Amino acid sequence: MGAGRIAVTPDLKSRFFATRKLTTDLAAPLSDADATVQSMPDASPAKWHLAHVTWFLESFILRDHVAGYRAFDDSFAYLFNSYYEAEGARHSRAARGLITRPTLAQVLDYRAHVEAAVDAQWNNFPDAALQLIELGIHHEQQHQELLLTDILHLFAQNPTFPALWPEPVLREATPDVAPLEWIEGPSGIQSIGYSGKGFAFDCEGPRHKVLLQPFALADRTVTNGEWMQFMNECGYSEPRHWLSDGWAWVQREGIAAPLYWEQDNEGRWLTFGLDGLRAVDPAAPITHVSLYEADAYASWAGARLPTEAEWEVVAEMHDPDGGNQLDAPCAVRPSASQARALFGNVWQWTGSAYRPYPGFRAAEGAVGEYNGKFMSGQFVLRGGSCATPRGHCRASYRNFFYPHQRWQFTGLRLAKDV
Amino acid sequence: MGAGRIAVTPDLKSRFFATRKLTTDLAAPLSDADATVQSMPDASPAKWHLAHVTWFLESFILRDHVAGYRAFDDSFAYLFNSYYEAEGARHSRAARGLITRPTLAQVLDYRAHVEAAVDAQWNNFPDAALQLIELGIHHEQQHQELLLTDILHLFAQNPTFPALWPEPVLREATPDVAPLEWIEGPSGIQSIGYSGKGFAFDCEGPRHKVLLQPFALADRTVTNGEWMQFMNECGYSEPRHWLSDGWAWVQREGIAAPLYWEQDNEGRWLTFGLDGLRAVDPAAPITHVSLYEADAYASWAGARLPTEAEWEVVAEMHDPDGGNQLDAPCAVRPSASQARALFGNVWQWTGSAYRPYPGFRAAEGAVGEYNGKFMSGQFVLRGGSCATPRGHCRASYRNFFYPHQRWQFTGLRLAKDV
Amino acid sequence: MGAGRIAVTPDLKSRFFATRKLTTDLAAPLSDADATVQSMPDASPAKWHLAHVTWFLESFILRDHVAGYRAFDDSFAYLFNSYYEAEGARHSRAARGLITRPTLAQVLDYRAHVEAAVDAQWNNFPDAALQLIELGIHHEQQHQELLLTDILHLFAQNPTFPALWPEPVLREATPDVAPLEWIEGPSGIQSIGYSGKGFAFDCEGPRHKVLLQPFALADRTVTNGEWMQFMNECGYSEPRHWLSDGWAWVQREGIAAPLYWEQDNEGRWLTFGLDGLRAVDPAAPITHVSLYEADAYASWAGARLPTEAEWEVVAEMHDPDGGNQLDAPCAVRPSASQARALFGNVWQWTGSAYRPYPGFRAAEGAVGEYNGKFMSGQFVLRGGSCATPRGHCRASYRNFFYPHQRWQFTGLRLAKDV
Amino acid sequence: MGAGRIAVTPDLKSRFFATRKLTTDLAAPLSDADATVQSMPDASPAKWHLAHVTWFLESFILRDHVAGYRAFDDSFAYLFNSYYEAEGARHSRAARGLITRPTLAQVLDYRAHVEAAVDAQWNNFPDAALQLIELGIHHEQQHQELLLTDILHLFAQNPTFPALWPEPVLREATPDVAPLEWIEGPSGIQSIGYSGKGFAFDCEGPRHKVLLQPFALADRTVTNGEWMQFMNECGYSEPRHWLSDGWAWVQREGIAAPLYWEQDNEGRWLTFGLDGLRAVDPAAPITHVSLYEADAYASWAGARLPTEAEWEVVAEMHDPDGGNQLDAPCAVRPSASQARALFGNVWQWTGSAYRPYPGFRAAEGAVGEYNGKFMSGQFVLRGGSCATPRGHCRASYRNFFYPHQRWQFTGLRLAKDV
Repeated sequence: MGAGRIAVTPDLKSRFFATRKLTTDLAAPLSDADATVQSMPDASPAKWHLAHVTWFLESFILRDHVAGYRAFDDSFAYLFNSYYEAEGARHSRAARGLITRPTLAQVLDYRAHVEAAVDAQWNNFPDAALQLIELGIHHEQQHQELLLTDILHLFAQNPTFPALWPEPVLREATPDVAPLEWIEGPSGIQSIGYSGKGFAFDCEGPRHKVLLQPFALADRTVTNGEWMQFMNECGYSEPRHWLSDGWAWVQREGIAAPLYWEQDNEGRWLTFGLDGLRAVDPAAPITHVSLYEADAYASWAGARLPTEAEWEVVAEMHDPDGGNQLDAPCAVRPSASQARALFGNVWQWTGSAYRPYPGFRAAEGAVGEYNGKFMSGQFVLRGGSCATPRGHCRASYRNFFYPHQRWQFTGLRLAKDV
Repeated sequence: MGAGRIAVTPDLKSRFFATRKLTTDLAAPLSDADATVQSMPDASPAKWHLAHVTWFLESFILRDHVAGYRAFDDSFAYLFNSYYEAEGARHSRAARGLITRPTLAQVLDYRAHVEAAVDAQWNNFPDAALQLIELGIHHEQQHQELLLTDILHLFAQNPTFPALWPEPVLREATPDVAPLEWIEGPSGIQSIGYSGKGFAFDCEGPRHKVLLQPFALADRTVTNGEWMQFMNECGYSEPRHWLSDGWAWVQREGIAAPLYWEQDNEGRWLTFGLDGLRAVDPAAPITHVSLYEADAYASWAGARLPTEAEWEVVAEMHDPDGGNQLDAPCAVRPSASQARALFGNVWQWTGSAYRPYPGFRAAEGAVGEYNGKFMSGQFVLRGGSCATPRGHCRASYRNFFYPHQRWQFTGLRLAKDV
Repeated sequence: MGAGRIAVTPDLKSRFFATRKLTTDLAAPLSDADATVQSMPDASPAKWHLAHVTWFLESFILRDHVAGYRAFDDSFAYLFNSYYEAEGARHSRAARGLITRPTLAQVLDYRAHVEAAVDAQWNNFPDAALQLIELGIHHEQQHQELLLTDILHLFAQNPTFPALWPEPVLREATPDVAPLEWIEGPSGIQSIGYSGKGFAFDCEGPRHKVLLQPFALADRTVTNGEWMQFMNECGYSEPRHWLSDGWAWVQREGIAAPLYWEQDNEGRWLTFGLDGLRAVDPAAPITHVSLYEADAYASWAGARLPTEAEWEVVAEMHDPDGGNQLDAPCAVRPSASQARALFGNVWQWTGSAYRPYPGFRAAEGAVGEYNGKFMSGQFVLRGGSCATPRGHCRASYRNFFYPHQRWQFTGLRLAKDV
Repeated sequence: MGAGRIAVTPDLKSRFFATRKLTTDLAAPLSDADATVQSMPDASPAKWHLAHVTWFLESFILRDHVAGYRAFDDSFAYLFNSYYEAEGARHSRAARGLITRPTLAQVLDYRAHVEAAVDAQWNNFPDAALQLIELGIHHEQQHQELLLTDILHLFAQNPTFPALWPEPVLREATPDVAPLEWIEGPSGIQSIGYSGKGFAFDCEGPRHKVLLQPFALADRTVTNGEWMQFMNECGYSEPRHWLSDGWAWVQREGIAAPLYWEQDNEGRWLTFGLDGLRAVDPAAPITHVSLYEADAYASWAGARLPTEAEWEVVAEMHDPDGGNQLDAPCAVRPSASQARALFGNVWQWTGSAYRPYPGFRAAEGAVGEYNGKFMSGQFVLRGGSCATPRGHCRASYRNFFYPHQRWQFTGLRLAKDV
């Protein structure tokens, strides 16, 4: 969680409780075991997400702003702190999946308890607390997306490929994908970074000027069909397309397709999602690819990834609440019909390393631990995905992951010099 | 599971259903998550144990001896086969804990389904099937013990130290522990190995003659109090007591006490069990020590571990159904008052490598995969433990684990030359 | 090796043979074993460096530009290719240290053979070959520095701390270190990147405009004395100074001092160099620190690392051939008296991830594999070191290493916003 | 080194100096680099062997029995102690290959220095010192064999397959291999273990009675030709032949042939030895196989490995100095014509775990660290090999390695029940 520059808005209370409810709704189809198991060190159990965002409220709002507040359970601060060194010892991240107690039911009680305490105190909260509640909303939205992608990863380990939302999804008829077109972006001296009065994470600022060479962005993200062409043309076996670290990763891990893709007995490509195993839709945006794969694809395609500044100056002209984003619990999937929108569907890898903007200062205290300390080794992604809660993203929003990670809904949009 | 030499006994049906019921009863306090998580590669989830022993019945009895039997779920053969290479592909052992579906409830349904099928067919089973049911009982009893020790290991990873059977246990008053006495055993030419008409695993035979030098066994197992003296006298930091591999293990793993021991803030030793964290009872038998530790202790004490032949010729004079063994679901613990019994309380490490007896032949087919193939690198333990179902053990019973393993109820009884 | 934009200069031949001679001279004090052993996967044996740069000449110049040239030994292409995927299979990097044959003497023969072939052909070389010779000089200079730092790393593993150049080094009297002063650099729209007619690596261009916020650079690099103050004030144990990956590295590796530092029995800090173990000189520049350490130091000092653009616009006003750089075989060490020079002494970590400049295109063919493919996960260093051959560095020169690496002569110069 | 029961013999001095000379002669074709590099953690550099056996003499004989003896170099005790915990700190085994200084020449000087000191003092040595010299001879003979096998392993890592003794070896014409015949051994109550007056390691005693069931040993060891039949009949891909740990090893390591075997372009099997790469001789004994492989072969062949007692009671009737053993520096290889001898050619894996004999006590002090502490996880091998110095082996000699190790000259002789 990062500290932002926050103006308290009138709808804060309704947004807060709506966010809380969405989290619980997302977890509704999960069994106690589904919510407990951790499928890899990068992922967390759903139960942990449910509890951690609640611990955040308890620790930074109730404990500090409600006289006499008593913690729901003293062990939870140890169990559900994520990485705030300033908040003391915490349970090892890699061992989160061994915590079968408290149960999912107890964690849901914890959520209700904290929500009731927030509700009871609402009118007495000072502005500082309300700003932390705004921060808490955004923090929880981030964990909503992680909850979905972590559950997807867990279910993908099960050889029976269970569907979390098994109802038949009405598929849009596959449209013909129009050839990619290039749209020139604004160049010269431009400004990027957040400057509004609403919430933004610290790493989104300060707003500052950048100098852009002439460039163009593709009018849509790369599709599964295009990716299959890359695969058919030996994309995964030609070292010249790849970053050196990426090539080593491909060879070490035996990577030959996006995450969650498998071939059936006839060689057709299937992909696993929250609605189970389905045929790959050639028209839909490619997703679950790493930066290494995205960069190799761009190299193969004779293009490149955009820088985050290029992406942002274009995105400022688009509606951040549009596109295919998360509105309700369901088996989210990138959609072919929304592939032109700058926001939603898939996070778009940029070619920018995640580093501080000129003049960046981390926020003070524990809440300031969020962003600055992660600024090595990671790349910036932009635009949100089908699993990002609508309302969470912005043109200035900087997501970041390591270049080999791909269990998020990560794809790409090409760029080129003009 | 190993093939035995089996005489079908009249009480087979009642023993079969009693065994099935005990397994389910042992799992009764487990949540869906408790039953799903795997705390280390050596352990298995409780749900896996519940299903695996049922798969064994389905695969070797119902499938082969019930015309038209349809598997409860076709995916279960893949998910719940353990290591029978002859039975085809199986889910990776290390990934057993990622299988959140089927749920615990579904696995219990599976158990009921198979039990009903066995019940319906009982009177039609040929003798070969009944012998496999006898084998199935013994197989399931082994997994009952593993289920308890695996759950204990899982709960021990939880920093809140939950108790599975949290009711206050009435503790016997700590008796004075009498000084250890030595009892001479029979030497010269003796016979060991199973020779009766009941069930035994293949590795327990053939019965054969051995030549024993004069020896004595201690009249009781080593106690926690004696172990604390070993610790106080730098037992864990003096390389000269240790096997070379054991010393490397102590240093690599930072071993300085038995498994599940921890010190409170005043330096008192506590031990975690199925009833939670309790003070170490000096009079009770030491348990959760590895062969390396047992061997180092014996060396420090100026004694040695018995060979399995020495142990067996003495044990043949004792009641294998006596002592502290598992009768019902509860927080089993080694008991001070039963430390003289040859059977029960703690498995006793011997100094014998687990190797075939002269003339040993593995059983034919998949059920023959059980024992012979594990005959490298492991040591024999004898006598059963507080977690061994009463009726399962015998004087000739050979349990075996790797010398570093200690999550079973493993302790030791000293021996010496005379 | 990267392709550059190369104007052939009249002194090419003399520079070529002088470079070749310096390499051999650097290796003169090495035994056959010294030259063969590989002390870690990041490092290479000296023999490998000696042969690899020669293989480069043989493969890219003699093979392609000398009719009928026969390879000195057909196995060398396999043994001494570094990472040119286009040039075919090659010996595993991590196993370079297992190649005891050819011997050092045979490798020196190989060098002489290739040099004679180049010499004989010199007047017949087309311009393309001469440009590759220019590239070969710069390539070999890079390996001269690596040869020294790899040998230092190897000797540091020897508990007897052998000195490669054991002669007593005349130490300058430790000067008083003047307090650090800040010097404002040029801001606004500036240009960086190579634009001259001489040699430069492909990643140094294209020259392009950047927009710089007002900033200042420290007038000298950080000293050992300042670093000891950082250590005394718990610099290595306060997570808040550290990047998250850096803190994980510090804890995993038990890092508590720069590489090659150790304490004697009285707690005085010593540092190991090519002249053996010597007392740390408080006035000399700190070296052998990682990006993680440099960044943590800057954070602790209330400053930051410069960006590579900031560094370059300042450095363009300085002499790249000045300062403490490598002129002859000796126990190179950073020098207190030259700490103000922009060039030499220690490579200066910047806060810039190593990424392509706008408009960057990798060179075609095998020689183009050099730079572009390494553009993920690494940080840029600037300015050369005491182990960089004088004449090799430029204001636009971009060195790069992973943020945990520190066996090069790596230090830092602080920057700040103004 | 183990303590033995030693009667000093008149030829001690000549045997001592002959042993010393043979070691140096074995190392004569090695370069400084050959003698320094360590190819795997199980192996040691030749230089280390040369120095370690010398350190043994210096530490246990000169230091304790020569007044005023000064160590050749004080750092050598740290560098060249092997595993004697009682002798203090020592250099990490895995890092032995990083010690380029002292050089090979310095180590040879060390050898000469210590030999001169022993020579000068010879007539003054007390009996205890002479007994330690006898021990030193046997210790050095063990390291002679290791030196050869470690060098073979190192050279096998070199893709150019250098031959240490490259002279063309006159090959015996491949004889027809006679069908294997079974020879019944003595059964009932027998005695094994050393009981003579000469030297033996502590683990060879006490001599004691054992009870043997009727058995037969094959009249010769298994041949390469028989092994190829095992390979052709899917021996390496049928899990039912294998111990469970062995099967895991085969799969994890991708084992499909003995160590040092490779196929040429036409699919013919070659094997690498100290004379380079040569065609596999079908008549010669199989070697460089692990216990896992030997056990799987025996299982496939419908036989078993002998116990060490079975082997010893037969071997007592044979000449331990006969057969193909090491007499002089050369490219030793198992020989078809000597495959019936009980001694020499290849160490023969037994099915016996390496455990203490009844009544075994380790020797006191540092020299007693040798044998007892290795008695877990290893299997006994008997009979010596082509690399064992003639005179070193005995019927009671117990060699031991882990079941996956195969860089020694290890093969097998079948046994069966009769």
